[in-house]
Amino acid sequence: MERKGRRGGGRAARVAARAAALPDDLRPIRPGMAGGTLKVLTEAQVQQIHEAALQALETIGLADAPPSGIAAMVGVGAIHGADGRLRFPRQVVEDALGQAARGITLPGRDPAHDLHLTGTKVHYGTAGAAVHIVDPASNSYRESTAQDLYNAARITQVLDNVNFFQRPMVCRDVADNLEMDLNSIYASVAGTTKHVGMSFSDPSHVAPCMELIHMLAGGEEAWRARPFISNSNCFVVPPMKFATESCETMEHCIRAGMPVLLLSAGMAGATAPSTIAGAVTQATAECLAGMVYVNAIQPGHPAIFGTWPFGLDLRTGAMCLGSGEQALLSSACAQMHQFYGLPGGAAGGASDSKMPDMQAGWEQMCSNVMAGLSGLNMVYEAAGMHASLLGFCLESLILSDDLIGQAMRCVRGIEVNEETLALDQMAEVCLGGTGHYLGTDKTLALMQCDFVYPTLGNRMSPKEWEENQKPDLMSAAIARKEAILDEARAQVAPDLDRAVRDRYAMYFQC
Amino acid sequence: MERKGRRGGGRAARVAARAAALPDDLRPIRPGMAGGTLKVLTEAQVQQIHEAALQALETIGLADAPPSGIAAMVGVGAIHGADGRLRFPRQVVEDALGQAARGITLPGRDPAHDLHLTGTKVHYGTAGAAVHIVDPASNSYRESTAQDLYNAARITQVLDNVNFFQRPMVCRDVADNLEMDLNSIYASVAGTTKHVGMSFSDPSHVAPCMELIHMLAGGEEAWRARPFISNSNCFVVPPMKFATESCETMEHCIRAGMPVLLLSAGMAGATAPSTIAGAVTQATAECLAGMVYVNAIQPGHPAIFGTWPFGLDLRTGAMCLGSGEQALLSSACAQMHQFYGLPGGAAGGASDSKMPDMQAGWEQMCSNVMAGLSGLNMVYEAAGMHASLLGFCLESLILSDDLIGQAMRCVRGIEVNEETLALDQMAEVCLGGTGHYLGTDKTLALMQCDFVYPTLGNRMSPKEWEENQKPDLMSAAIARKEAILDEARAQVAPDLDRAVRDRYAMYFQC
Repeated sequence: MERKGRRGGGRAARVAARAAALPDDLRPIRPGMAGGTLKVLTEAQVQQIHEAALQALETIGLADAPPSGIAAMVGVGAIHGADGRLRFPRQVVEDALGQAARGITLPGRDPAHDLHLTGTKVHYGTAGAAVHIVDPASNSYRESTAQDLYNAARITQVLDNVNFFQRPMVCRDVADNLEMDLNSIYASVAGTTKHVGMSFSDPSHVAPCMELIHMLAGGEEAWRARPFISNSNCFVVPPMKFATESCETMEHCIRAGMPVLLLSAGMAGATAPSTIAGAVTQATAECLAGMVYVNAIQPGHPAIFGTWPFGLDLRTGAMCLGSGEQALLSSACAQMHQFYGLPGGAAGGASDSKMPDMQAGWEQMCSNVMAGLSGLNMVYEAAGMHASLLGFCLESLILSDDLIGQAMRCVRGIEVNEETLALDQMAEVCLGGTGHYLGTDKTLALMQCDFVYPTLGNRMSPKEWEENQKPDLMSAAIARKEAILDEARAQVAPDLDRAVRDRYAMYFQC
Repeated sequence: MERKGRRGGGRAARVAARAAALPDDLRPIRPGMAGGTLKVLTEAQVQQIHEAALQALETIGLADAPPSGIAAMVGVGAIHGADGRLRFPRQVVEDALGQAARGITLPGRDPAHDLHLTGTKVHYGTAGAAVHIVDPASNSYRESTAQDLYNAARITQVLDNVNFFQRPMVCRDVADNLEMDLNSIYASVAGTTKHVGMSFSDPSHVAPCMELIHMLAGGEEAWRARPFISNSNCFVVPPMKFATESCETMEHCIRAGMPVLLLSAGMAGATAPSTIAGAVTQATAECLAGMVYVNAIQPGHPAIFGTWPFGLDLRTGAMCLGSGEQALLSSACAQMHQFYGLPGGAAGGASDSKMPDMQAGWEQMCSNVMAGLSGLNMVYEAAGMHASLLGFCLESLILSDDLIGQAMRCVRGIEVNEETLALDQMAEVCLGGTGHYLGTDKTLALMQCDFVYPTLGNRMSPKEWEENQKPDLMSAAIARKEAILDEARAQVAPDLDRAVRDRYAMYFQC
């Protein structure tokens, strides 16, 4: 019954051929494809923002640095004013840019998942500090737990297009803050061998967390050789103030050999100017101050330029991330990162919608595809994020794999050469041949490596859809979530797991 | 109860201020914003495609032109070969490009809806020939009717961001083909005063349809002064064949003073090369032949360069429009239009999903925002289209207004100047003021004209969402559809409506 004739056999063979796992060199997309075709700023505008940022650093400066930071930054030429603000002469910023690490690699525990942050290479991943998990099956929100975080990590492990796992939600079932950090680390690392991001903010937690991390790495030396966890440091409280405690935490992270994300999360219209240009300028100034800081502590320490300006609904003062303004903010930031030649990241792909509905789809695609086309190295918040960062959704995370796959296909762009222009093929088909390209050798060869096929996205005709009992996207996502969670094993060896649990109270089951 | 204090009053006042209708100069977006920040092709690649298209026209040419077309095109220098194909020396194409209409206006019946197709100005609208209407309330498809078409036109009339109404679906309740064309015209015109697109393909229908159109316009002279209907001419059957009957229809439309869309709808991998570059090359060659044709019949007649290559799922041979490949195809086409300086259109915003779900959202946004950023003059299929063009959905059309609004905000882009860089504001807030931008005069002034607010897109916090009985996007769209259809009156005077119905059998009620 399977081969009803040439056509049926041909189609079945094509579907089977494509369903087989692709060798890496034939994959249509992979992490780190180069973007850069979208330029929401002209070169002159980039220069204007750069100049304005330098001027802000020289004339306004930043308040509230901790004593250790003041000492370090004054040591490289920053000026500590009578008003308590640190101001940065242009030369100080340029010196830091000269020392800053470029072309850094964020390692995964599995080297296959290393992220090489050069040029306009694009990587998509999770991030955030959602306090709820979103359950589409019951149309409800509940507090997120350590088990949810572990599950999100396990799901991320199997999704080709989610390239890193920065902790997207808070373990609210862990009351003690240090225990929460320890659980966040272990839930993430136990779930995925991709690069992991944390968000320590208490300086006293770094040392105990590093003990666990060394244990997971197999010792400090192994850790320092391949630091598979980076820390997201909210080192500023915009506008133009250092976050004193987070800065101290950052200093500890730097000394511990942990790459840092210099995260400036101003809200355009509240803690940053409401204009896109103004919000990008302020974030750029703040991150430049952060680069001075990092390189004053440890020249060349890996740091990601994390201009993350967020949109705001000015009618209500509520954060919103699903807007076109947000997509423009993050795209403009990508150009600033490229201007400095520094590894950079910003937010893309978060939705304001409460559920993974059509609104979520359009909002997540808008900023994800624009960030990618702009060549943003690290697109944070790219998957699973809802309710303006308050809710994380596992089904949405799974669907994002399809969504990001299409966005990454757009990032890959168009190859133009003699073969792809296809004049020979056109002549053959029109003048000599069948009048049809389907089934030509060229077409079949490219079927594999040129096209991104959806996993859950549905391309059936209405007739097929009816014959198949009208498959529903959300039901398919729920089913895939359950299948993944049934099958995905822990990514740590059983004896290491036992050793960790002997020493630490873990709030989730592997 | 309304003013509980300063904060509450301020917020209520801001919401009220923003809810008021905006004067046109304060609207954050409007039809025809200029795109062009996205360039998926380099200038050299555009040139390569142009050269390949010219070579295809010189060496392969097109078959199957009608005798009248052969005569006209041979008259301007095309060569009619022994194999029946018309080939076009480079000079013939260049002559046509020299004569072709540029900077054309597609009038609405209401001049407020005129579309000015110059440069990278972007307009979004409907199009297609869906045979089903999609009903999300019952999760089902049924055959589309003349009443559905009228309803779609009425809804389009009230949506700010759907800028034109090309007939998106077929009136399947009208058995006679001429009656179907007449019903399509009148259902569209009775529903909206925006520019309307038709798809006549039978040459014998043009004359009787023009009688109705003259009646609607108030006479032939008024019609010719402001031709508010254009015809979508599928003038080629790719690869590289003229569609004989459609070409004859096109000649009649040209003589009747109707702007034409030169529509080349090849399917990449079936009727066009599977590579993006090859599909764009072939569509460009075909539309260049169309430009020669139009200008041979009537130099300078308004024609839209309609390179509409579609994506295909090569595993199954099924059309698919929601892919990243599709977004790249249409974006590349926009650059070719700009290279020629001709008004152009392509498909964007159609989904493969059967329902307005998350997949529909990401697919519609991907190609809509990329087409807009590429400066595509006419983004056809931008709203309401599902199941790879087989189903049209009124609720999705309504939601597209929000989706396209955000896309158009991205098209508008970023203004960088002394005011938007906001250094003065930054200094004031950081050094002298409140430490907060919310509530500053600058922020409040820009709240109106810088931000696009969604109509149905939901930005509530999870708490507000729960307190409001968890509003659901689809229920909101269904309710808005019903409200619009309850209220929206016919856009023709009652006596004209009576006169039309006296003369023609109309299958829908006004």
